[in-house]
Amino acid sequence: MKAIVTVMLKQGVLDPQGRAIGQALHGLGFATVGEVRAGKVIEIDLAETDAEAARAQAEAMARKLLANSVIERFEIALA
Amino acid sequence: MKAIVTVMLKQGVLDPQGRAIGQALHGLGFATVGEVRAGKVIEIDLAETDAEAARAQAEAMARKLLANSVIERFEIALA
Repeated sequence: MKAIVTVMLKQGVLDPQGRAIGQALHGLGFATVGEVRAGKVIEIDLAETDAEAARAQAEAMARKLLANSVIERFEIALA
Repeated sequence: MKAIVTVMLKQGVLDPQGRAIGQALHGLGFATVGEVRAGKVIEIDLAETDAEAARAQAEAMARKLLANSVIERFEIALA
Protein backbone atom coordinates (compact mmCIF):
# COMPACT_ATOMS: atom_id res chain seq x y z
CA MET A 1 0.00 0.00 0.00
CA LYS A 2 0.98 3.63 -0.34
CA ALA A 3 1.75 6.01 2.53
CA ILE A 4 1.48 9.73 1.85
CA VAL A 5 3.46 11.81 4.35
CA THR A 6 2.78 15.56 4.34
CA VAL A 7 5.35 17.71 6.11
CA MET A 8 4.59 21.35 6.93
CA LEU A 9 6.40 23.97 8.98
CA LYS A 10 4.79 24.36 12.40
CA GLN A 11 2.50 27.31 12.97
CA GLY A 12 4.62 30.23 14.10
CA VAL A 13 7.73 29.15 12.19
CA LEU A 14 8.62 31.70 9.53
CA ASP A 15 7.95 30.30 6.05
CA PRO A 16 9.85 32.39 3.48
CA GLN A 17 8.94 30.05 0.61
CA GLY A 18 5.24 30.38 1.40
CA ARG A 19 5.57 34.13 1.70
CA ALA A 20 7.32 34.36 -1.67
CA ILE A 21 4.57 32.30 -3.29
CA GLY A 22 1.94 34.56 -1.71
CA GLN A 23 3.64 37.68 -3.03
CA ALA A 24 3.96 36.16 -6.49
CA LEU A 25 0.24 35.27 -6.49
CA HIS A 26 -0.63 38.84 -5.47
CA GLY A 27 1.60 40.08 -8.27
CA LEU A 28 -0.35 37.92 -10.71
CA GLY A 29 -3.59 39.58 -9.60
CA PHE A 30 -4.93 37.00 -7.14
CA ALA A 31 -6.09 39.61 -4.63
CA THR A 32 -8.04 37.20 -2.39
CA VAL A 33 -4.90 35.35 -1.32
CA GLY A 34 -4.09 35.53 2.39
CA GLU A 35 -1.43 33.51 4.19
CA VAL A 36 0.40 30.89 2.12
CA ARG A 37 2.32 27.96 3.66
CA ALA A 38 4.56 25.69 1.65
CA GLY A 39 5.45 22.13 2.57
CA LYS A 40 6.44 18.84 1.06
CA VAL A 41 4.68 15.59 0.37
CA ILE A 42 6.34 12.20 0.11
CA GLU A 43 4.51 9.22 -1.44
CA ILE A 44 6.02 5.91 -0.34
CA ASP A 45 5.11 2.54 -1.85
CA LEU A 46 5.20 -0.04 0.93
CA ALA A 47 5.30 -3.84 0.58
CA GLU A 48 2.90 -4.04 3.48
CA THR A 49 -0.78 -4.95 3.34
CA ASP A 50 -1.82 -4.19 6.92
CA ALA A 51 -2.95 -0.58 7.30
CA GLU A 52 -1.94 -0.24 10.95
CA ALA A 53 1.54 -1.62 10.29
CA ALA A 54 1.94 0.65 7.25
CA ARG A 55 0.91 3.69 9.27
CA ALA A 56 3.35 2.77 12.07
CA GLN A 57 6.18 2.37 9.55
CA ALA A 58 5.40 5.68 7.86
CA GLU A 59 5.33 7.41 11.25
CA ALA A 60 8.73 5.96 12.12
CA MET A 61 10.11 7.14 8.75
CA ALA A 62 8.73 10.63 9.32
CA ARG A 63 10.26 10.85 12.79
CA LYS A 64 13.65 9.47 11.74
CA LEU A 65 14.14 11.10 8.36
CA LEU A 66 11.33 12.97 6.65
CA ALA A 67 10.42 15.66 9.18
CA ASN A 68 12.45 17.83 11.52
CA SER A 69 10.24 17.72 14.61
CA VAL A 70 11.74 20.93 15.99
CA ILE A 71 10.17 23.06 13.29
CA GLU A 72 7.94 20.71 11.27
CA ARG A 73 4.76 18.72 11.82
CA PHE A 74 3.65 15.80 9.68
CA GLU A 75 0.47 13.98 8.71
CA ILE A 76 0.13 10.48 7.31
CA ALA A 77 -2.53 9.26 4.90
CA LEU A 78 -2.80 5.77 3.42
CA ALA A 79 -3.95 4.94 -0.10
CA MET B 1 -11.51 29.06 3.00
CA LYS B 2 -8.28 27.19 2.49
CA ALA B 3 -7.09 25.62 -0.77
CA ILE B 4 -4.48 22.88 -0.55
CA VAL B 5 -2.61 22.40 -3.84
CA THR B 6 -0.48 19.27 -4.10
CA VAL B 7 2.07 19.24 -6.93
CA MET B 8 3.80 16.00 -7.93
CA LEU B 9 6.08 15.09 -10.81
CA LYS B 10 4.19 13.23 -13.50
CA GLN B 11 4.53 9.48 -13.69
CA GLY B 12 7.53 8.68 -15.85
CA VAL B 13 9.44 11.85 -14.98
CA LEU B 14 12.65 11.02 -13.13
CA ASP B 15 12.41 12.05 -9.47
CA PRO B 16 15.92 12.20 -8.00
CA GLN B 17 14.69 13.65 -4.71
CA GLY B 18 12.25 10.77 -4.25
CA ARG B 19 14.94 8.27 -5.16
CA ALA B 20 17.36 9.78 -2.64
CA ILE B 21 14.70 9.58 0.08
CA GLY B 22 14.03 5.94 -0.83
CA GLN B 23 17.71 5.06 -0.61
CA ALA B 24 18.03 6.85 2.73
CA LEU B 25 15.01 4.94 4.08
CA HIS B 26 16.55 1.65 2.93
CA GLY B 27 19.78 2.67 4.63
CA LEU B 28 17.85 3.21 7.86
CA GLY B 29 16.53 -0.33 7.68
CA PHE B 30 13.06 0.25 6.18
CA ALA B 31 13.27 -2.75 3.87
CA THR B 32 9.61 -2.69 2.76
CA VAL B 33 10.02 0.64 0.96
CA GLY B 34 9.44 0.55 -2.80
CA GLU B 35 9.17 3.58 -5.07
CA VAL B 36 9.24 6.98 -3.40
CA ARG B 37 7.97 10.17 -5.06
CA ALA B 38 8.53 13.63 -3.61
CA GLY B 39 6.36 16.65 -4.26
CA LYS B 40 5.24 19.89 -2.73
CA VAL B 41 2.09 21.09 -1.05
CA ILE B 42 0.93 24.70 -0.89
CA GLU B 43 -1.77 25.79 1.57
CA ILE B 44 -3.44 29.03 0.50
CA ASP B 45 -5.84 31.02 2.67
CA LEU B 46 -8.48 32.54 0.41
CA ALA B 47 -10.90 35.37 1.23
CA GLU B 48 -13.56 33.46 -0.66
CA THR B 49 -16.51 31.60 0.83
CA ASP B 50 -17.85 29.85 -2.28
CA ALA B 51 -16.24 26.44 -2.74
CA GLU B 52 -16.56 26.37 -6.53
CA ALA B 53 -15.04 29.84 -6.89
CA ALA B 54 -12.22 28.92 -4.50
CA ARG B 55 -11.47 25.77 -6.48
CA ALA B 56 -11.44 27.70 -9.75
CA GLN B 57 -9.05 30.28 -8.30
CA ALA B 58 -6.74 27.62 -6.92
CA GLU B 59 -6.71 25.88 -10.28
CA ALA B 60 -5.80 29.12 -12.04
CA MET B 61 -2.98 29.68 -9.51
CA ALA B 62 -1.67 26.17 -10.06
CA ARG B 63 -1.69 26.58 -13.85
CA LYS B 64 -0.09 30.03 -13.80
CA LEU B 65 2.47 29.67 -11.03
CA LEU B 66 2.51 26.64 -8.77
CA ALA B 67 2.91 23.74 -11.19
CA ASN B 68 4.94 23.27 -14.33
CA SER B 69 2.42 21.42 -16.47
CA VAL B 70 5.11 19.96 -18.71
CA ILE B 71 6.47 17.73 -15.95
CA GLU B 72 4.09 18.15 -13.00
CA ARG B 73 0.48 17.32 -12.19
CA PHE B 74 -1.51 18.95 -9.39
CA GLU B 75 -4.51 18.20 -7.19
CA ILE B 76 -6.67 20.67 -5.30
CA ALA B 77 -8.41 20.04 -2.00
CA LEU B 78 -10.48 22.57 -0.06
CA ALA B 79 -10.63 22.86 3.71
